[in-house]
Amino acid sequence: MPQNRLLSPARHSGEHTDDQASVEEALLTGRHVDRKGTSSRKGFFARWKNPIITLWAAIATIIILVIGVLYVRSHPEDTKQPSKPAPVPPKAPKEHKKRNLIFMVSDGMGPTSLSMTRSWRQFTEGLAINDVLTLDKHFIGSSRTRSSNSFVTDSAAGATAFSCGLKSYNGAISILPDGNPCGTVLEAAKAAGYMTGLVVTTSITDATPACFNSHVNMRWEQDRIAEQQIGEHPLGRVTDLMLGGGLCHFLPNSTVGSCRNDDRNLIADAKKSGIEFVHNVDGFKYLRHGKHVKMPLIGLFAGTDIPFELDRKDEEYPSLMAMAETAITALDIATRDSDKGFFLMIEGSRIDHAGHGNDPAAQVREVRAYDKTFELVMKKIDEMETETVVVSTSDHETGGLAAARQLHETYPDYLWYPGVLANASHSSEFMAKTLADFAEPGKMKITQFIKDELLPLQQITDADDAEIAKLVKAKMTGISTAYLWADMVSRRAQIGWSTHGHSAVDVNIYAYPQEIAKKLMGNHENTEIGEFLRNYLDVDVEAITKKLRGEADTKWMGKPLDELLAETHKSMGVGGDAGEVTVSDRDWTATQH
Amino acid sequence: MPQNRLLSPARHSGEHTDDQASVEEALLTGRHVDRKGTSSRKGFFARWKNPIITLWAAIATIIILVIGVLYVRSHPEDTKQPSKPAPVPPKAPKEHKKRNLIFMVSDGMGPTSLSMTRSWRQFTEGLAINDVLTLDKHFIGSSRTRSSNSFVTDSAAGATAFSCGLKSYNGAISILPDGNPCGTVLEAAKAAGYMTGLVVTTSITDATPACFNSHVNMRWEQDRIAEQQIGEHPLGRVTDLMLGGGLCHFLPNSTVGSCRNDDRNLIADAKKSGIEFVHNVDGFKYLRHGKHVKMPLIGLFAGTDIPFELDRKDEEYPSLMAMAETAITALDIATRDSDKGFFLMIEGSRIDHAGHGNDPAAQVREVRAYDKTFELVMKKIDEMETETVVVSTSDHETGGLAAARQLHETYPDYLWYPGVLANASHSSEFMAKTLADFAEPGKMKITQFIKDELLPLQQITDADDAEIAKLVKAKMTGISTAYLWADMVSRRAQIGWSTHGHSAVDVNIYAYPQEIAKKLMGNHENTEIGEFLRNYLDVDVEAITKKLRGEADTKWMGKPLDELLAETHKSMGVGGDAGEVTVSDRDWTATQH
Repeated sequence: MPQNRLLSPARHSGEHTDDQASVEEALLTGRHVDRKGTSSRKGFFARWKNPIITLWAAIATIIILVIGVLYVRSHPEDTKQPSKPAPVPPKAPKEHKKRNLIFMVSDGMGPTSLSMTRSWRQFTEGLAINDVLTLDKHFIGSSRTRSSNSFVTDSAAGATAFSCGLKSYNGAISILPDGNPCGTVLEAAKAAGYMTGLVVTTSITDATPACFNSHVNMRWEQDRIAEQQIGEHPLGRVTDLMLGGGLCHFLPNSTVGSCRNDDRNLIADAKKSGIEFVHNVDGFKYLRHGKHVKMPLIGLFAGTDIPFELDRKDEEYPSLMAMAETAITALDIATRDSDKGFFLMIEGSRIDHAGHGNDPAAQVREVRAYDKTFELVMKKIDEMETETVVVSTSDHETGGLAAARQLHETYPDYLWYPGVLANASHSSEFMAKTLADFAEPGKMKITQFIKDELLPLQQITDADDAEIAKLVKAKMTGISTAYLWADMVSRRAQIGWSTHGHSAVDVNIYAYPQEIAKKLMGNHENTEIGEFLRNYLDVDVEAITKKLRGEADTKWMGKPLDELLAETHKSMGVGGDAGEVTVSDRDWTATQH
Repeated sequence: MPQNRLLSPARHSGEHTDDQASVEEALLTGRHVDRKGTSSRKGFFARWKNPIITLWAAIATIIILVIGVLYVRSHPEDTKQPSKPAPVPPKAPKEHKKRNLIFMVSDGMGPTSLSMTRSWRQFTEGLAINDVLTLDKHFIGSSRTRSSNSFVTDSAAGATAFSCGLKSYNGAISILPDGNPCGTVLEAAKAAGYMTGLVVTTSITDATPACFNSHVNMRWEQDRIAEQQIGEHPLGRVTDLMLGGGLCHFLPNSTVGSCRNDDRNLIADAKKSGIEFVHNVDGFKYLRHGKHVKMPLIGLFAGTDIPFELDRKDEEYPSLMAMAETAITALDIATRDSDKGFFLMIEGSRIDHAGHGNDPAAQVREVRAYDKTFELVMKKIDEMETETVVVSTSDHETGGLAAARQLHETYPDYLWYPGVLANASHSSEFMAKTLADFAEPGKMKITQFIKDELLPLQQITDADDAEIAKLVKAKMTGISTAYLWADMVSRRAQIGWSTHGHSAVDVNIYAYPQEIAKKLMGNHENTEIGEFLRNYLDVDVEAITKKLRGEADTKWMGKPLDELLAETHKSMGVGGDAGEVTVSDRDWTATQH
């Protein structure tokens, strides 16, 4: 141990000789010293030079050792794994190159949806003033949502910003304003060896999911979207797992429950190509929370939308959270032996529908279900071996929702009433359907049914004659009463709405673990979220774009935009002096029931 | 120079003797060695031990020197000011203990205000899709705004959360629900030796500024607030600089322009106590951007509010930015030789008023003026020697604003029209006042004046008969037409509003430099912003609270709440099943004109 030997010399310094001293002086001064001609003063220095050098050698050695030890302690990773870069998350050691990405979309959820749901929960559960939703704790930024052709985006342009990382026109399903398709993060992930999945509570052919695994010029080409989703796509099948609603676009139009324009049976075709198909809640239960999944799998549990959380029964339809859990577990198991992880998109689709319907009672339950799903996703991330991040955002706000509403000309009090939302036991959609299904004719019978059966469901005890008359009139003329029911709840809760369409406000961004999604802190263009997704997975979206554009035939993307617009009698309305061109979303009321 | 002497020995190692060697071996091994009895092998080691030690001493010395030089180069600040902790911002060296805090309040500015103003600016200035406001670049989080007695706060409870860091009831001016006063960050800063200032565009006696330097049970006691602001306060005068509007509460009710209930002349009283008083734009200009300020100073440039930015003329009223610049420069100069900096609150007060009036054309200009003021504050921070941070947030949202509005039963297009706001040359408040001041009687004359003089000001060319008839009727019956003018612009722009009051949505938080305000990243209770303010300044707010509660007489806080409510015929409306108690803000329309 050289250290020990070097640490001991000081005790022996008294044994130095004059001979040594002269040499040591020479060493110290840099000049040769003639020992015989030295004076007594020089003799003193000569005597001590050697011990001083030795002492210094010892001290210097100690200093170097101490510095070394301190450095090693303060830079442990430099010495432990000198050749590898530091891992990003401060979690248990993980295989660095393998990653999972869970992207959550709260369709139509604006800032007020959060405030409204938080207050409703504080009220109904008797929580403290500062009690918050799970999402609130993981808020990191906000997203600007305008599309390429309007200050107010639709879900298609919104999802294209996420999937392709590029702005496009309202209605575009991963097609750019120049008419060319753009590769998506899901397609690029699949090409790179990741497993891929989509979980939604609306039709799997609706704009948000469609933008990840299909390309059509206008969102209402849902038949074609379904065909691409089962693998009739230039890249073949790109999705390993799809759970949600929208069975109707997979059924031949000769079948009850179909909404296809042709007689194709996509379920049969999908099965032929080796895709497992589940289409009811019993089949879902058999997936055993994802432990019993054979992929590729499509599970569609409703003709169009899965019912609102406020109306849904577990024995009839799976929840968003249950589908999310199933998907994550299945994808985690399936990628266990792979060097790539998975990409999964989970959409709380019907927050948007509650917004379109201006139904605050339905919306708070949809937001809370989404919040709980985010919580579950966090738990799964903590449990999984593979490094995983969840990023959650909205494509846009819906309804111009305000947690305050002035009902009269007199100056309003500063309040709103969450108790009214707590009292409503069903969505306005359910109420309208129940009234529409009421078979006995006659004004009297209808009035009685509304008073005796329907109003008590929402605990509305103060309905005036005018309100009831409106419901009766609508029922008798065959018009949906959904907006009327929603308005009765909204006005009593003093919740305001500006539109049945979308609005332009920035939407929130949430993430866990935050450290991984640092780049999304602050205010961002929605396309920057798309960029984050591809960068995190380190996949080549541009290569997919090139491949898709290499297709000689462009018919696979559906009819040209002009033809589609002419056919459906919808127009690209040129917006006044803003010079903005936009396309109406869909006739929401027509498709909701 | 011991280093130089120690660096040279290696060249002389060949001159060592056997005598030396034996001693050196003893030094190395710790045992005495008899030179005469050593073997030839031992003789070889003995011969080279001394040169080895010397060589090692030299090498170790070089290593230590190299490490030292490298350390100094990578940690320059440690060696330049070794006794001081590192400064927080990555800027030029600053006096660490000295700090300035600039707190900006965008009263009534919700998330949609930002989106609307950004799009309006992109449209009017022909900017790119991703062009953003200055605020957008410094977005760090959001604030939950509910008060102790309602899900929808007023500005008084909102500002008390900032000033005291505690929740209170709507209407409270730094008084808690138990009726006791709470010390404010401004009062604590003053007590700690900071200079203090308030800059607003509304009355200096209004809720937001009042909460920082006064305490009354209900916000409408503005006469008493003014008295406390000039120093009739248990702590004496706590504010060094106040700039804004609200002269009317300082004038005796015997004077034109007074809104006091008594004959007190607070300007005279303030001057007597040594306060400088400026009350017009010429006096403001004489302050020379703050270089010519003698404090304490009160500068009030309007009876109540400074006009909306859309109507304001520089030659008549100073801008928010000009007042902010003046205050910062003056406070910076005044604290130059102090070991404490300053606390300054700057409020964009009238964003809120544009919200109350549902006037989007006025609001975008107010938000942009606030945005420019934030930019100026950042520039001043970069210039000042003292470490300074700016934190900006809102107390609440006003109006339930939505950048989208459905005008008809048919499903709306996804758009709104910023060009309509660009075309409006005046606020609805200005339009209403101009029509109210029109002296010629008769329906015909009024109709002609509206058509020929007023509508062209807003570039409204498509007003229908019904709209004009409403304006004429209101004018003839002496009712303000402000809401009508605002609605004409809002509907054409397709901008929605839900109330003339406040709403519950979370509001944004901005900061510069972000590193200093890290604790405010994410979603926070508004009281946490109050906590940040006191912690950053390191001042003892609790000590102020104790001092204020030590006052035997509580009359200085104004009339008891019950008495005030009875007197003004306003009631604490008990809110339905939410069990929420709230107090109306003020009769906004009554005080706006």
